[in-house]
Amino acid sequence: MKHKNGEIWEFENNVNSTTGGVEDAHSDGGVILGLDGGTTSTICICMRVLPFSSSSNLPDPLPILARAVAGCSNHNSVGEAAARDTLEQVMAETLVKAGAKRSAVRAVCLGVSGVNHPTDQERVLNWLRDIFPSHVKLYVHNDAIAALASGTYGKLHGCVLIAGTGCIAYGFTEDGQEARAAGAGPVLGDWGSGYGISAQALTAVIRANDGRGPQTMLTNSILQSLGLSSPDELIGWTYADPSWARIAALVPLVVSCAEAGDQIANRILDDAVQELALDVKAVVKKLGLSGPDGNGSFPVVMVGGVLEANKKWDIGKEVAACIQKTYPKASPIRPKVEPAVGAALLAWNSLMKETSRLS
Amino acid sequence: MKHKNGEIWEFENNVNSTTGGVEDAHSDGGVILGLDGGTTSTICICMRVLPFSSSSNLPDPLPILARAVAGCSNHNSVGEAAARDTLEQVMAETLVKAGAKRSAVRAVCLGVSGVNHPTDQERVLNWLRDIFPSHVKLYVHNDAIAALASGTYGKLHGCVLIAGTGCIAYGFTEDGQEARAAGAGPVLGDWGSGYGISAQALTAVIRANDGRGPQTMLTNSILQSLGLSSPDELIGWTYADPSWARIAALVPLVVSCAEAGDQIANRILDDAVQELALDVKAVVKKLGLSGPDGNGSFPVVMVGGVLEANKKWDIGKEVAACIQKTYPKASPIRPKVEPAVGAALLAWNSLMKETSRLS
Repeated sequence: MKHKNGEIWEFENNVNSTTGGVEDAHSDGGVILGLDGGTTSTICICMRVLPFSSSSNLPDPLPILARAVAGCSNHNSVGEAAARDTLEQVMAETLVKAGAKRSAVRAVCLGVSGVNHPTDQERVLNWLRDIFPSHVKLYVHNDAIAALASGTYGKLHGCVLIAGTGCIAYGFTEDGQEARAAGAGPVLGDWGSGYGISAQALTAVIRANDGRGPQTMLTNSILQSLGLSSPDELIGWTYADPSWARIAALVPLVVSCAEAGDQIANRILDDAVQELALDVKAVVKKLGLSGPDGNGSFPVVMVGGVLEANKKWDIGKEVAACIQKTYPKASPIRPKVEPAVGAALLAWNSLMKETSRLS
Repeated sequence: MKHKNGEIWEFENNVNSTTGGVEDAHSDGGVILGLDGGTTSTICICMRVLPFSSSSNLPDPLPILARAVAGCSNHNSVGEAAARDTLEQVMAETLVKAGAKRSAVRAVCLGVSGVNHPTDQERVLNWLRDIFPSHVKLYVHNDAIAALASGTYGKLHGCVLIAGTGCIAYGFTEDGQEARAAGAGPVLGDWGSGYGISAQALTAVIRANDGRGPQTMLTNSILQSLGLSSPDELIGWTYADPSWARIAALVPLVVSCAEAGDQIANRILDDAVQELALDVKAVVKKLGLSGPDGNGSFPVVMVGGVLEANKKWDIGKEVAACIQKTYPKASPIRPKVEPAVGAALLAWNSLMKETSRLS
């Protein structure tokens, strides 16, 4: 273990068991770090190691000691050096808050966006090996895996559908196979994403204005919300800023117009539901998640702003219904804990498996 | 007339009639400048003023004295100062090549992309007033108008459909009304554009790869052409460069796959044909170009790479057929001269009208 950023860890000199901190992995079972590294922010939590007997009966609430938040840790977005620093700093901050030293850590699980290939995984593992003592178990995955684990309480089985600004479906079998669908961004047909829904709504306004499509409530709703006076001004607004999230933020307006009975808004949401369900169904089919007779049960964890809307027009509920038309035993889950906790539970599950294999 | 860029015009001191140049508008009828200012390049031509009697019987070839090419003159793209300089320099270069002074110029017509509002028009007119003597007639339009005039030989009537990287339909009535459809860019539903066609093709490859869509010849065709080894690599390729033209350059591959019988490629082109025809039909309807009984004749000028493809799968021909299903007397025209010549003919037409009104 090298100390590239030694000053980050100086706090450890002041941690001792009399302050109520978790000094030693052996004294009380130790702690686990779970991290969800996204393109917008990175969240790390520190959880006390659960007793092994609680596998099928998790304590509620979970023994979460601390939580810290940092910026982007996607190396594609900020570069490798900045991504590494962000990860190390947010983990250190979490341990400071928990009053725990690195020697108390039993396992670390990172779910980081941008980690797609074994080479990405190995690079991040090497960063962790530099930071933690050699006895610490290290796990590095894509952030979709942390999201899945947040719904399955750490079990890597089933399909996760993430629909926020972008969308992606990611699936895993119990024997370690994985598959994905969508997640290719707005140019490459992620129509069920927040960006996709909003771009369709903006397009409907343009088409109504120039006579190519029917009139829609979306026109007034969107223009009013953006403070624009005519549909022509939407063109300038759209290209003034390349941020996908800025476009995706219009989704609640589309939902409101659909709830008010606008046919165009309803069609856009119906199409998005079909697309999101198709993302999941493609993954389920590829992995055979529904079993040999196609009638087996499997979890579908649904996360992200588009699926979490809990209005009259509930996109997540419609997506679940659409999946269940093809796979009646699909079991939709809206996670009660955040992905960083999912990552910690994943680490705990892996730790348990390794320990039971050794004993 | 001020001389902000005096050195540009120093050549005029060396022009005289013995060099074969056109020194004086009164000595031989003078010259006209026609300019097509696009986002990629700006083209200017200098044409001898035609005898007024040739209005319905234009000489072939037209008496074009010189042609010059410069970069972008869209003020939205390069800023006002650079746009102004580009326009002035390319006009001066054209006159140098023609051996003509500004005093020989009878009229100037600019069709410039980005000129959409009267304020844009007035600003460019002011630039021209600084450059040319006060007797020169000045006309400033959007570049779509120059494209229309290239098909109608200077008459402002009918609809022009431009489909290259982007697409737009622009229409004009003889009494000066105008309307447009599409032209809102790739995010806002220009599905018939070269970008739109290519983005659909890339999406089809992604969907075939992750199990959401049928297999297609587009996969091998596009991967081979881009030197990529797997569809996953398309995601990185797509977002590595924001240029719309780079994506649009894939259109010929889509046409080839469609010609080879690929159903997906055929569906993409069929959809693009419907979209492009709809752009025109929306404009025709808004302006009543087909007359009160809906059966009148009007020109539809078709320009741009997507419509000019002259292969077995001829997008332009299919678009024309689709428009004629609704408007049987629509008269499709593929221009034989370039838009800069259209701008010059437009200037000549306007000049003729003004002169005949005065006499």
